[in-house]
Amino acid sequence: MNDGVKLGVLGGGQLARMLSQAGSNMNLDLYFLDSDPDCSVSNLTKNLKIGDVTKYQDVIKFGKNLDVLTIETENVNVEALKFLAKIGVKVYPEPSVIEIIQDKGLQKMFFKNNDIPTSLFEFIYNKADIESNELPAAFVLKVRKGGYDGKGVTIIKDRSTINDIYKPHIAEQIIDISKELAIIGARNANGEVAFFDPVEMVFNPQLNLLDYLVCPANLTTDQITILRTTTQKILETLNYVGVLAVEFFLTKDNRLLVNEISPRPHNSGHHTIEGAYTSQFEQTLRAVLNLPLGPTNTIADTITINLLGESTSENYMKTLSLKGVYLHLYNKIPSIGRKIGHITIINPNRNRLFENAKKVKEILAK
Amino acid sequence: MNDGVKLGVLGGGQLARMLSQAGSNMNLDLYFLDSDPDCSVSNLTKNLKIGDVTKYQDVIKFGKNLDVLTIETENVNVEALKFLAKIGVKVYPEPSVIEIIQDKGLQKMFFKNNDIPTSLFEFIYNKADIESNELPAAFVLKVRKGGYDGKGVTIIKDRSTINDIYKPHIAEQIIDISKELAIIGARNANGEVAFFDPVEMVFNPQLNLLDYLVCPANLTTDQITILRTTTQKILETLNYVGVLAVEFFLTKDNRLLVNEISPRPHNSGHHTIEGAYTSQFEQTLRAVLNLPLGPTNTIADTITINLLGESTSENYMKTLSLKGVYLHLYNKIPSIGRKIGHITIINPNRNRLFENAKKVKEILAK
Repeated sequence: MNDGVKLGVLGGGQLARMLSQAGSNMNLDLYFLDSDPDCSVSNLTKNLKIGDVTKYQDVIKFGKNLDVLTIETENVNVEALKFLAKIGVKVYPEPSVIEIIQDKGLQKMFFKNNDIPTSLFEFIYNKADIESNELPAAFVLKVRKGGYDGKGVTIIKDRSTINDIYKPHIAEQIIDISKELAIIGARNANGEVAFFDPVEMVFNPQLNLLDYLVCPANLTTDQITILRTTTQKILETLNYVGVLAVEFFLTKDNRLLVNEISPRPHNSGHHTIEGAYTSQFEQTLRAVLNLPLGPTNTIADTITINLLGESTSENYMKTLSLKGVYLHLYNKIPSIGRKIGHITIINPNRNRLFENAKKVKEILAK
Repeated sequence: MNDGVKLGVLGGGQLARMLSQAGSNMNLDLYFLDSDPDCSVSNLTKNLKIGDVTKYQDVIKFGKNLDVLTIETENVNVEALKFLAKIGVKVYPEPSVIEIIQDKGLQKMFFKNNDIPTSLFEFIYNKADIESNELPAAFVLKVRKGGYDGKGVTIIKDRSTINDIYKPHIAEQIIDISKELAIIGARNANGEVAFFDPVEMVFNPQLNLLDYLVCPANLTTDQITILRTTTQKILETLNYVGVLAVEFFLTKDNRLLVNEISPRPHNSGHHTIEGAYTSQFEQTLRAVLNLPLGPTNTIADTITINLLGESTSENYMKTLSLKGVYLHLYNKIPSIGRKIGHITIINPNRNRLFENAKKVKEILAK
């Protein structure tokens, strides 16, 4: 069935690294493309090819002899993927889906056209669009393509401070947020779907970066149902194959709005490595190889903390002195604000879980 | 603390492979020594050195620049390890402990001298020892050094069939066995100990190889206490650092006898990857790096099935269609009777667990 299937991944960052770890269990033949020979996955594989995932020729050269191709970043050359799909490479998610998701404007249009609740938005092409009276006094300005980890996102309170607009953006309504949530769904080519328990994400306002996340999120059964059915609708409407992360806002007036979607394993699913029966990485492999999806049951409550290069390796190792703490380092050179790893804390007792998370934070801050 | 610690492993087989996978989470700098450039770990590391773990010079050359050295097989050159320990390399378990364990005769003497219950035995050096009247009519003949996976073990019913004895052996009393059990213990240099839940091992009589194992074993609280206290006594008497597997016989008259011990992760602990909060491989790394041991709680009941090259890759992948089935392939070329992987099946419901194990067996037999 999948004997000797050659599976390629565009990108060699931490998501590729964790896909590689999952694939090594089954001894899958995984290939990676990244422009950095020292990228995160580099020390775990002999199948890293050097090339730029945004360059047409590099992606074609990498992909043309593969059976299946997936991505660990949405910032890839979609034209090349379309060509590869035409010559018979199974590209998951489909290039047309990646094309929608890599552009926050097309994403928003997709939500709007399919009655998926999301915040109000306008397309912004130039300074004149900003100055129009259609926009509220304060709004969120997001670059449509290429932003990540909060980069390319600005909260605008005084539009006169904006000098000029060079790239297509969207302006989004500012939402009164009660909670930021995410749910990871998966779908294989047979149409089987599965969902992990939703997580609550807590952000560091200074860096606009995820500070920690808790799974399961504290939600009502009805709210969980909305997250699942919305995600299922997105998966099925897009004829999606792979793992999809859907980020939601729970508004202060109790509405659930889709913020954005990611066509790949996601930071909000790292806890599944220790905290669920199947990790989001194994689930990705199962989905794109059209294997039955793994069980998604939660093993116990988890908190995941991103490591942003703010502490020392010595301190990272010290956190392991607390029971149920798992360290993941991505083989990246630390710099302030760079995501170089994560820590997952597991504990069936929610109070002890938070106590241990606090202790981990204290060790990291030393 | 362990920043940049260079950790070496003697051997590059499947245990090394799974240690490498565990180490990659923490991005540990792991080095491996094996004479086969295509050994199990070879496609997961750039730090495989080629050399023979039984050769003095090869082990010295490999180990002299390492900080910590451990083993994935007991058949290693102990003299070299003693030298390395003298020049300051931390060798865990200690060479003198490996020396005892690699020789089934010394192991038996260790049990006897420390009042650890085990079956009766005699040392056999030559044919005359076999012919002595000290031995019962039927007995088990075991080569003292170098046997593995049932190799070097023979049940003797008619001693006239034995041609000659070239290597030191032990003759062991045949035990009326009710169950074969194993427990994995761990101890770090601080003296912290931890135990996984015991497992029951079921053997294939044709191949004298483990057929499947169930965790947790169906035992009384008193029996579990005996397994734990006996293992703790062994760990502490040997001043042991690392992971130790202790195999027990439960006799038909309800005694628990130690069969043998292994100074490394063990086939009877593979289920811990999915079935316990910490895997035996991460536990090994924690123990030898003197980190606090991880929690050993069982997540759910598991059955582990060894893959002995009897089926096809296609069938291995097909087993993934059953819920809660995890495939581990070791990057080994299949041949009949060669352990090339294992399958772990997890299910909180014991009946469904056995049903799924039966279905896996049926798929493998096709």
